[in-house]
Amino acid sequence: MKDHTDAPLPTYQDVVDAHERIKPYIHRTPILTSEFMNKLTGAELFFKCENFQKAGAFKVRGACNAVFGLSDEEAAKGVATHSSGNHALSLSYAAGRRGIPCNVVMPRTAPQAKKDAVIGYGGTITECEPSTTSREAVFAEVQARTGADFVHPYNDPRVIAGQATCSREFMEQVEGLDAVIAPIGGGGMISGCCLTLSNIAPGVEIYAAEPEQADDAYRSFKAGHIIADDAPNTIADGLKVPLKENTWHFVSHHVTDILTASEQEIIDAMRLTWARMKIVMEPSCAVPLATILKNPEVFRGKRVGVIITGGNVDLDKLPWMAG
Amino acid sequence: MKDHTDAPLPTYQDVVDAHERIKPYIHRTPILTSEFMNKLTGAELFFKCENFQKAGAFKVRGACNAVFGLSDEEAAKGVATHSSGNHALSLSYAAGRRGIPCNVVMPRTAPQAKKDAVIGYGGTITECEPSTTSREAVFAEVQARTGADFVHPYNDPRVIAGQATCSREFMEQVEGLDAVIAPIGGGGMISGCCLTLSNIAPGVEIYAAEPEQADDAYRSFKAGHIIADDAPNTIADGLKVPLKENTWHFVSHHVTDILTASEQEIIDAMRLTWARMKIVMEPSCAVPLATILKNPEVFRGKRVGVIITGGNVDLDKLPWMAG
Repeated sequence: MKDHTDAPLPTYQDVVDAHERIKPYIHRTPILTSEFMNKLTGAELFFKCENFQKAGAFKVRGACNAVFGLSDEEAAKGVATHSSGNHALSLSYAAGRRGIPCNVVMPRTAPQAKKDAVIGYGGTITECEPSTTSREAVFAEVQARTGADFVHPYNDPRVIAGQATCSREFMEQVEGLDAVIAPIGGGGMISGCCLTLSNIAPGVEIYAAEPEQADDAYRSFKAGHIIADDAPNTIADGLKVPLKENTWHFVSHHVTDILTASEQEIIDAMRLTWARMKIVMEPSCAVPLATILKNPEVFRGKRVGVIITGGNVDLDKLPWMAG
Repeated sequence: MKDHTDAPLPTYQDVVDAHERIKPYIHRTPILTSEFMNKLTGAELFFKCENFQKAGAFKVRGACNAVFGLSDEEAAKGVATHSSGNHALSLSYAAGRRGIPCNVVMPRTAPQAKKDAVIGYGGTITECEPSTTSREAVFAEVQARTGADFVHPYNDPRVIAGQATCSREFMEQVEGLDAVIAPIGGGGMISGCCLTLSNIAPGVEIYAAEPEQADDAYRSFKAGHIIADDAPNTIADGLKVPLKENTWHFVSHHVTDILTASEQEIIDAMRLTWARMKIVMEPSCAVPLATILKNPEVFRGKRVGVIITGGNVDLDKLPWMAG
């Protein structure tokens, strides 16, 4: 049983290698722009649509990098993880493409659409309670039983290098970005942005956007050390997990600022994006736009890259619907 | 007062001219593909996302061609139209970009989201009953009062030439298409496909997709003459209008076949597209996929271009929601 979270931090060469390794299994996702959103915010926004990504989220980048980097011998025992949703789908997808087993520990409260998708990709689910403590205990049992390679949803250097390919593509697709903003939960996507941008575009500002009701990264950033909550409650269900050592390294060294938004602000930004940009995206993806609308002075006049992280939403339970 | 519907049929040169004229005001919309949809249908599908178009629908192409083709003198009196929705938005958008008035007659039952959008673009609404008869009577009064240039939503040669730019782009973006399929209501988009493809790619099959509950184009096609219903009822609210002389010309000469789908098949295809492709689109846009799923033998093994015509849906009233 191997825990990659103690491996050395990834380098930019790891990102280049990851991009080459995962290219056959991922989409180079398109960039959308909206005159309406530009007028509304006073900024020039470029939306990188990882909701159109394979398995519906950017997390497939890190998952594929981990799965396709395994030796045949390592791969034979399969992979395992715990995840609030998209990493579970993505690892199941990646394992399926390689033809190896995938065991995932998911909170029993995860959206049914995500559970169905994991099973659809061939993954096996073991449920836990919706808290970090329960998740880690159940996972230890599963991992001990299967001997699978543990692919942590964000603290794994292979995963961070994979997620970093997103901002690498972004810089190839849009010239002259002044800032990039993405949601922050465990910090995998933001760490990837830090890794790429600090190497190839160190002048670009990096903003992380977080729900007020799960603002552990914000408080960590201000305090200068990791503060973890056990079971925060937010509609942005992909952002409930805390920072870990590796992501904290990147966040504490390279993030410009962390901005927060309320639940209502997140819902409003989500509905506005669906209505005006015609894309299906998760509540988590609306947090960056919500914080841009809340802090216009930070972004006005800038060319801002906004990462739309995923589109795996339960279409029967949209947050602006009553009941 | 000028009625362009009696003008000569548009030529392919009109399409080339239209494309040049409207380029500054429209998006060159992206093509999305989905491995899931390909597996499901046995065809290779390419989705042209006109739901990402300015004003949220392909109709802005025809509207801009009409508005920006007017002389200054003609333009001064503004433009007017009747429309079940997207043409109203599109003409308001185009008139707004040129800075001229736009009067639209809309059924009082049109989605509130579309009414709000017309007003948002600066258009003026006069309501009518939801029938062709009422719509035409109310419109005659409005047009007489304003002296505006009448831009018919689909029977106008300038509008057909504008819509034809969509399939022209499609042929530039995807090589080797065997067939193109689009929804049919009044026949503006399908006529545009016929006009472009019969000139630059005459081997490409052209399929029109229609709701069973508003199948007047299907029955016209089989009968060999226009059959018009006064007030058909379907969830695909953009497809309730009948063919007219100019669109009938193109449909009767160039369409390969017209296929129909039930209301439930349309809703299922719509939900499936939202869930798997992460795009917001109107019920009308789901009719092509519904007919492909219903007639797999027609499309199997072919490279098929599917036109997603618009994304202006009422997010509070999604058809798979109870109540």
